[in-house]
Amino acid sequence: MSTLDRRNFIRKTSLAGAAISIAPTMGSAGISYTERPFMHKYMGDFAAPKLEKVRAAFIGVGSRGPAHLQFFAGLEGTEIVAICDLYEDNAKKWSEKAKEIGKGNQHQNIKLYYGAEEKWRTMLDEIKPDVVFVITNWANHAPMAIEAMKKGAHAFTEVPMALTIKEMWDLVDTSEATGKHCMMMENVNYNREELMYLNMCRQGVIGDLLHGEAAYIHELRWQMTEQERGTGSWRTPQIANNNGNLYPTHGLGPVAQYMNLGRKDDNFKSLVSFSSPSRGRKLYEQNEMSPDNKWKNMEFTGGDINTSIVKTHLGKTVMIQWDETSPRPYSRHNLIQGTKGTLAGFPNRVALEGGVLGITKDHHEWVEGDKLAAVYEKYDHPLYKRLNEAAKGSGHGGMDGIMMYRIVECLQKGLPLDQNVYEGAFWSAVTPLSIASVQNGGMPQEFPDFTRGNWKNTNPLDIIS
Amino acid sequence: MSTLDRRNFIRKTSLAGAAISIAPTMGSAGISYTERPFMHKYMGDFAAPKLEKVRAAFIGVGSRGPAHLQFFAGLEGTEIVAICDLYEDNAKKWSEKAKEIGKGNQHQNIKLYYGAEEKWRTMLDEIKPDVVFVITNWANHAPMAIEAMKKGAHAFTEVPMALTIKEMWDLVDTSEATGKHCMMMENVNYNREELMYLNMCRQGVIGDLLHGEAAYIHELRWQMTEQERGTGSWRTPQIANNNGNLYPTHGLGPVAQYMNLGRKDDNFKSLVSFSSPSRGRKLYEQNEMSPDNKWKNMEFTGGDINTSIVKTHLGKTVMIQWDETSPRPYSRHNLIQGTKGTLAGFPNRVALEGGVLGITKDHHEWVEGDKLAAVYEKYDHPLYKRLNEAAKGSGHGGMDGIMMYRIVECLQKGLPLDQNVYEGAFWSAVTPLSIASVQNGGMPQEFPDFTRGNWKNTNPLDIIS
Repeated sequence: MSTLDRRNFIRKTSLAGAAISIAPTMGSAGISYTERPFMHKYMGDFAAPKLEKVRAAFIGVGSRGPAHLQFFAGLEGTEIVAICDLYEDNAKKWSEKAKEIGKGNQHQNIKLYYGAEEKWRTMLDEIKPDVVFVITNWANHAPMAIEAMKKGAHAFTEVPMALTIKEMWDLVDTSEATGKHCMMMENVNYNREELMYLNMCRQGVIGDLLHGEAAYIHELRWQMTEQERGTGSWRTPQIANNNGNLYPTHGLGPVAQYMNLGRKDDNFKSLVSFSSPSRGRKLYEQNEMSPDNKWKNMEFTGGDINTSIVKTHLGKTVMIQWDETSPRPYSRHNLIQGTKGTLAGFPNRVALEGGVLGITKDHHEWVEGDKLAAVYEKYDHPLYKRLNEAAKGSGHGGMDGIMMYRIVECLQKGLPLDQNVYEGAFWSAVTPLSIASVQNGGMPQEFPDFTRGNWKNTNPLDIIS
Repeated sequence: MSTLDRRNFIRKTSLAGAAISIAPTMGSAGISYTERPFMHKYMGDFAAPKLEKVRAAFIGVGSRGPAHLQFFAGLEGTEIVAICDLYEDNAKKWSEKAKEIGKGNQHQNIKLYYGAEEKWRTMLDEIKPDVVFVITNWANHAPMAIEAMKKGAHAFTEVPMALTIKEMWDLVDTSEATGKHCMMMENVNYNREELMYLNMCRQGVIGDLLHGEAAYIHELRWQMTEQERGTGSWRTPQIANNNGNLYPTHGLGPVAQYMNLGRKDDNFKSLVSFSSPSRGRKLYEQNEMSPDNKWKNMEFTGGDINTSIVKTHLGKTVMIQWDETSPRPYSRHNLIQGTKGTLAGFPNRVALEGGVLGITKDHHEWVEGDKLAAVYEKYDHPLYKRLNEAAKGSGHGGMDGIMMYRIVECLQKGLPLDQNVYEGAFWSAVTPLSIASVQNGGMPQEFPDFTRGNWKNTNPLDIIS
């Protein structure tokens, strides 16, 4: 048997043996991978050999891809070697832009692939890039990242990393089998407030952490106007046909790193979830769509707002919400509560036992707005302070630029990445687990342990300076 | 058999028959009352005969009692006939105050009972009041209200109405058997913003309701300094020995009435719940309590913050939180979200599709602070507008005064009360159901239908003018 065949064989064998004990708490996910296959390497603190020049291929430069491509292209020691997109115009436009950024020194030989769904496979075979950025529709993230690793590249995917528990295991197993990085690029973990709150949590400012809140509340009904191209062309049926939290990672990623979930201290254990009725998308279809619209008369089964609660091994709780439909202002909640205080977002606000830096006298009042200046002054994350200037011009308050800088820096210096494959899997797993819980009347669903027990000896993410 | 004995007989008989089908969804509550006993009357839209003069007895004038007593005493057509309290000083102090408020015309003959736990029973026998206000520790609410109804009085309890599902059924059954009101006095339902949001929901301002959020986040560790007398003397062990949402009704009551839960449109169906670890009370004990303190070295099993999600029959969701321990600012959340907008509290804020009264241009921005003036101007509840002046001086922004005015008004005019016995039971039931869910790893718990199906033909609460 080849290595991969033996791996599959071992998996099937152990699955059969474990199913009975796991089944009652696994809900509809129903997959167990209790033993790491022989020859595989745990990737928790993995550092790859240094890459002096990072040769990258981009798959998908329609919507989010161009931002990543431009930040990457602007960094020293990078080389864009290929761009793949379904559409010729996208590929050409961003190839030209990369050349322009490269000023004759970088990115002058970019091979373009476009015009058919499977061109990315040809690209991987022909180009052999060091890293591949997968910035496509959600359903393609896992298959493309898996294939990229198998072809010898480190894989970087947009969020979510994958849609099913099986895909998440396949990503983990492929990363472990190939010794390649697989990072889900959760950019919000690099946002100024999230970095600052991580720094404050590590300094013990709010004591022992007990509870967090995360959300992606972002009204995006307008995406339904996109029918043939663009995010709405694939996200609309995705939202129509699934009932759960379909986009958990922007809010959850930072909270998970505050709590060191999956990194020594604690880990995800179980989840309960309820969705509201489904109303808003149907109303939008009825009120805004012309009869010839592709989504006209579509049925929507997914509840407008989903609310889930995660329980950790230490008993901590994280309340997670998702709503891309209801008419209300944006929020990621970004709340972390400890025994000595609470930090929260939307709006940003801080309350501490004994008051905040002399601004408040006790914890009964939030410090917010202009008064937060003293908090930023004292607690801004050293990484933000170092890179804020370099990342100016990012459309996301600097977080996209900082993230790409760190990816390239870690690859060039041979350092562990800031987000490992297991974190991407845990954070993305909220989607299939919430769907299973909603389908089963709120029944608790157990998180698979993608680390197979190794989270207990995985280092917490450093406060990078 | 007497009526009450037959009732118990019928209950036991029907319980045995129903247990098998109910058990799997009832969790540890485990009680079913599917058939209303013969001779009992459904109390959903119940109006009692008019009381020209409302003769009231108060049990408990230590902490919350005095506020209720003073508002009651100040209304025309009321007469305080008895006060019962464990402590002589309390009873005498508030009897004097009532006489003073009565100006020689009302409340001049108040019989006092104090000095022993069971004096309230003697009072009920001797005085035969029209109504009894029960403002004692939580454990006494149900037994005192039940006995008051049996002795021919309408019963009004502080929140929560009762602590166990059995007590809630006993209150419902006693009210139905005696034809007496049993109202849990949820004062927050009379607060200005809550009344206004109810008015806006009924006017369809936010479309179809989909989701609500409720909380009692109120740091009350200082109550642990009360050892022999006062709220902390009984609430401290209550918090130490129970793990769930121990005080749900202040946040939930208003949200339940926005959604007409238990009133024709919809009703409570099930609940899931997780608590955080228990830390803050132990830390407070270790850091603040002297060795001779009664609570020194007490163990606390209840999580600092509890998060629950309710699912309704129509699939709507309500996220409910409770935290009386963590150092953070007060909140009841008070959020209600519909297909056309969201109303929220702490801070008060409104977002509507198409913008709010020309102040905002769309739903991506909250209207809050001074800008809410136009919203109050347009949507203030007619009851608030009528009674705001009369209720000035209440320590609770008018809500206590408005509530007592409405109680007396309804009793004098022979109108249904604004909160029926079933609402008190449903709202209070979150405590035992959340405790059961937490004990069982987040397993969904079914709400008993305290109305035995009659919620489907119970009128929604009027917008009272």
